[in-house]
Amino acid sequence: MSNAPIKTLSEALNVDMDAVNDCIRARMQSDVPLIPKLADYLISSGGKRIRPLMTLACTAIYGGEMKRAHTLAAAVEFIHSATLLHDDVVDESLERRGKKTANLVFGNQASVLVGDFLFSRAFQLMTEDDSMQVLRILSHASAIIAEGEVLQLTHKGDMATNMDHYIAIIKAKTAALFAAACEVSPVIAGADDKAVQAMHDYGMYLGIAFQIADDALDYSADQATLGKTVGDDFREGKLTAPILIALKDADAQEQAFWKRTLSMDDQKDGDLDTALEILKRHSALERSLDLAREYGQKAKDLMADAPDHAPGIKAAMIDLVDYSIERDR
Amino acid sequence: MSNAPIKTLSEALNVDMDAVNDCIRARMQSDVPLIPKLADYLISSGGKRIRPLMTLACTAIYGGEMKRAHTLAAAVEFIHSATLLHDDVVDESLERRGKKTANLVFGNQASVLVGDFLFSRAFQLMTEDDSMQVLRILSHASAIIAEGEVLQLTHKGDMATNMDHYIAIIKAKTAALFAAACEVSPVIAGADDKAVQAMHDYGMYLGIAFQIADDALDYSADQATLGKTVGDDFREGKLTAPILIALKDADAQEQAFWKRTLSMDDQKDGDLDTALEILKRHSALERSLDLAREYGQKAKDLMADAPDHAPGIKAAMIDLVDYSIERDR
Repeated sequence: MSNAPIKTLSEALNVDMDAVNDCIRARMQSDVPLIPKLADYLISSGGKRIRPLMTLACTAIYGGEMKRAHTLAAAVEFIHSATLLHDDVVDESLERRGKKTANLVFGNQASVLVGDFLFSRAFQLMTEDDSMQVLRILSHASAIIAEGEVLQLTHKGDMATNMDHYIAIIKAKTAALFAAACEVSPVIAGADDKAVQAMHDYGMYLGIAFQIADDALDYSADQATLGKTVGDDFREGKLTAPILIALKDADAQEQAFWKRTLSMDDQKDGDLDTALEILKRHSALERSLDLAREYGQKAKDLMADAPDHAPGIKAAMIDLVDYSIERDR
Repeated sequence: MSNAPIKTLSEALNVDMDAVNDCIRARMQSDVPLIPKLADYLISSGGKRIRPLMTLACTAIYGGEMKRAHTLAAAVEFIHSATLLHDDVVDESLERRGKKTANLVFGNQASVLVGDFLFSRAFQLMTEDDSMQVLRILSHASAIIAEGEVLQLTHKGDMATNMDHYIAIIKAKTAALFAAACEVSPVIAGADDKAVQAMHDYGMYLGIAFQIADDALDYSADQATLGKTVGDDFREGKLTAPILIALKDADAQEQAFWKRTLSMDDQKDGDLDTALEILKRHSALERSLDLAREYGQKAKDLMADAPDHAPGIKAAMIDLVDYSIERDR
């Protein structure tokens, strides 16, 4: 699937997205030169800006004030950037979006501290918006994200992890920020509680679908042709959807393989190929995407009921769900 | 000097401090067991709770609502705890308050993520207090703290560091939170802008004095008898007040010594002893404390002008300045 919905949204909201990018650039500045240097390295590295785009789009749909959406979209991107910096330190990642990670280029110390700066800056931006409800939504989401990251850490290599644990982890570490990014829009548009809940849930379901698809992509052979690494989650002992699906139907030999490679931290050359074969044997990637589509359908149904004060935006937000699941394959 | 002012404040405010501790314990909870486990390890490790005590004391002095001070004092302690966790990861510290650091016991990954959780939780607590001005003060302070930490990182081993750079670093990394902890009190008491500025400045000057004394203590031989390590800053290449004072008066041989040990990361057995001798030769610890006393005097003058709605508290807050400088020697 092409990135048509991202293109549609980016074009329809290009003036707003420019304002968001201006805000991001202006507010990542600091008298300490390493801060804008590192922040710019991360933020300008070609991310799709999907979260701020969601805040803009949902605000447009509800007819909210776009100027407020610019500030909050920038705050959302700062929170996301802070979590990326800390994630890469925690995972000892070497590459993101085909580029060396910030921790590799600038060191773990700078990545931790600049992450803290961006996180604080996000809250400063929110106080400029001046809505306590928005601050409640985003501070709550931030705490949930951190809980999700710790939960993921404690489940690494834990063979007792099941699909419920996995969904709880991705709901917290990924979907909570998608949910908050959408939820603030009806708030600033002055919409009712039902609308606020609906946009929260749209973002939550979309975020879950997005992360399941992301975890399937990590094992997709097509990734290699795109210059991305395959099997990062496998090497880190993360029990994601494809593994959990394959584990459920595993015979004794497969079970022993997963236990050795994921839980006992004993990986040899060729193990990733074996893992990919087992996943294929159980159609684990396709079944992961089926699961993502279930959550995606809920997101689409919720968006279908939303108003549409900006022509074309709502339809693109529905298409965005399919794109999040089918992208890059 | 004894810890008399801490004792006076702790006794006068003991009901309030109990409420703060209850709030801290309640709000460090999470469904993810590692979070309260790690947070409790850090927070229960016998810190003096000087920052929350300052929020309580300043609120009492201005006759503000103590219930609000409890929440904000807990938020201040959460921000402090988050920065401690991240600091120890950045400095690869092994010991804090005579105990193994959290990063050593639970790992860097958990320390980074639980720090993020405590930081988010601090902002959640602030939204419960419901004052946008308080949120502005503390989100601003948080960004300044992170800037100070990055600034310190970029000055490590940099022989061009001067006293102005050093004061800028400690003002940001330490004094900004002391300032914010005091500044929120006249805000919740509804005092005027002059009072808000005065308490901010009191906390700022006290924080600077506190950190200079802390940096002198790092080279104090008496520390060893208290079971604390000596020379951590030396080993990390931090150019703190004692070093900067000794460097200013250094002869060629001493200059070469400091350059090799601090800037070229080339430290041998016996170098710390040599450093201590050079510091003694220049009375660098005593002269550092003289500098701390200059800042401390400004803090005392500001507190002297404050009202005193709670008998004895104001006098103890003036004594607290001397205690911060003369402690543990």
